[in-house]
Amino acid sequence: MIEQEIRNMDFASRLPRELYLPVDYVMSNGGKRIRPVFCLLACEMFSGNPAAALRPALAIEIFHNFTLLHDDIMDKADLRRNKPTVHKKWNENTALLSGDAMMVLSFDLISSVKPELLPQLLPVFNRTALEVCEGQQLDMNFEALTGVTEQMYLEMIRLKTSVLIAAAMKIGAICGSASVKDAELMYDSGISLGMAFQIQDDLLDLYGRQEKFGKKPGGDILLNKKTILLLTARQRAGKETGQRLNDLLENENDPDIKIREIKKIFEDLDVRKITEKKAANLFNEAMEKINSTNARNSGKSELTGFIEAIMTRKS
Amino acid sequence: MIEQEIRNMDFASRLPRELYLPVDYVMSNGGKRIRPVFCLLACEMFSGNPAAALRPALAIEIFHNFTLLHDDIMDKADLRRNKPTVHKKWNENTALLSGDAMMVLSFDLISSVKPELLPQLLPVFNRTALEVCEGQQLDMNFEALTGVTEQMYLEMIRLKTSVLIAAAMKIGAICGSASVKDAELMYDSGISLGMAFQIQDDLLDLYGRQEKFGKKPGGDILLNKKTILLLTARQRAGKETGQRLNDLLENENDPDIKIREIKKIFEDLDVRKITEKKAANLFNEAMEKINSTNARNSGKSELTGFIEAIMTRKS
Repeated sequence: MIEQEIRNMDFASRLPRELYLPVDYVMSNGGKRIRPVFCLLACEMFSGNPAAALRPALAIEIFHNFTLLHDDIMDKADLRRNKPTVHKKWNENTALLSGDAMMVLSFDLISSVKPELLPQLLPVFNRTALEVCEGQQLDMNFEALTGVTEQMYLEMIRLKTSVLIAAAMKIGAICGSASVKDAELMYDSGISLGMAFQIQDDLLDLYGRQEKFGKKPGGDILLNKKTILLLTARQRAGKETGQRLNDLLENENDPDIKIREIKKIFEDLDVRKITEKKAANLFNEAMEKINSTNARNSGKSELTGFIEAIMTRKS
Repeated sequence: MIEQEIRNMDFASRLPRELYLPVDYVMSNGGKRIRPVFCLLACEMFSGNPAAALRPALAIEIFHNFTLLHDDIMDKADLRRNKPTVHKKWNENTALLSGDAMMVLSFDLISSVKPELLPQLLPVFNRTALEVCEGQQLDMNFEALTGVTEQMYLEMIRLKTSVLIAAAMKIGAICGSASVKDAELMYDSGISLGMAFQIQDDLLDLYGRQEKFGKKPGGDILLNKKTILLLTARQRAGKETGQRLNDLLENENDPDIKIREIKKIFEDLDVRKITEKKAANLFNEAMEKINSTNARNSGKSELTGFIEAIMTRKS
């Protein structure tokens, strides 16, 4: 449904082509479509039919891809989903402006629901959109900051990642005529899930199997990224281990040694297990919230089944 | 009212500061507030009270300033309203992300009107926002394009400039409970006005008095900008004069000679008079449309008086 609706938008035929071809490129470039699928499944759970959430689901997916497009400019990333980023394939101005157009398109899609839903949906969508910007700013701040704690990190990923997943759940539920209480439960489940996914990403980056994950393990360590693994290690390390960790991060130039030694420290400090436990707890919280709603059981199983499939992915 | 409402938004206190301080900087940096004033006056014209249009007016002003912020990145402009642009004062990533946040803020403000107005206002605002992006793209395309005609130029400024002024008028009118027909007349008057303003800008750049206009006349000529003056001259020039014009544009390195000689060609071809006539016609069209609405006369005089003050400015 999502792919069909994206094709129906027919970005490739819109004028000026210089503005819309990059939009078509980004939106045709795949991705797991997790957010719109959540939105549709949440709607179906409450109403038996996902169709009422189709345009909002697409709004969320376009908004998500807009954030990736602008984030890639800010991060100077060359590749996204194994293809050149828009600012590499075209240029930065094109990426900037096409991203702006995508944001407008997402607002236009969320505005196109039944008028009686607008007063409920718009505040969720708008607040979420602003929070995602705030999360991206925190992420950029953290790069230059030394004292980032686990709590600060969790708040950053809540804003940068979780709120959009939560909004997808809540908006889907609202489109499916869920009660206010159930819509809120769906939002909360999305927050827990978003955190779980991000923590799992951090885990997969180091412990994922290369053939499945598609990239060499340990990339985050080489970039000195402040992942939940590193922050947990810092929290648990005594003075000596903490210094050794910092020394490896700052001064070790051999990538293989750097990854191996830091991995060893993580092992000594039980970092992997602790982090896996955190992800599992968040995942369970999400499931409980979904199951505690007043939705039809078949819909709940479909959504929770989809979530399990994502959580058990090795890539 | 606008300035007070901007202060009420209290951007300077919002977190993360790195995201919102640039928003505060841009929104406190003045500007003529033409669009929000149009919006308020249009509302008052039909209802006797501008207040119902206050938040939409602010939405339009924030959206306008967002476009300036991102345009300045794309144009690599150092100054805006005699102060450093955001990407100069901070950096490009900050300018990009704060601009994104401003766009969200504008959508959130337009979404905060009385729910019964949403189905009328959102399509106007969203379509306009997208058209402004399209206009900016055309403007960038034209820089590298040789065969730009007057008609293409007018379509570009319609999208880049006029539609937002038109939307300000129409949205104000809708907030003032204008009829569908009157709201459309207000939109059309805004289109004419936007074109008139841009043409007047082109005229002032060359014929404005430096002490009032604040910059040396002829800047557009030195940048080889495709203004309505140049396009009119090209249209009217015979082969020989056309070649001389191109030669001056491409090869004349002395700025004073370049401006003086091109000005002379414009004079020979009656370019100034023809262009002034175009602006005057558009201005009259706008006035007629406003006066043909079913609004209170006192409101009409207030709006048309404000427009006359802008049109007769020498700076």
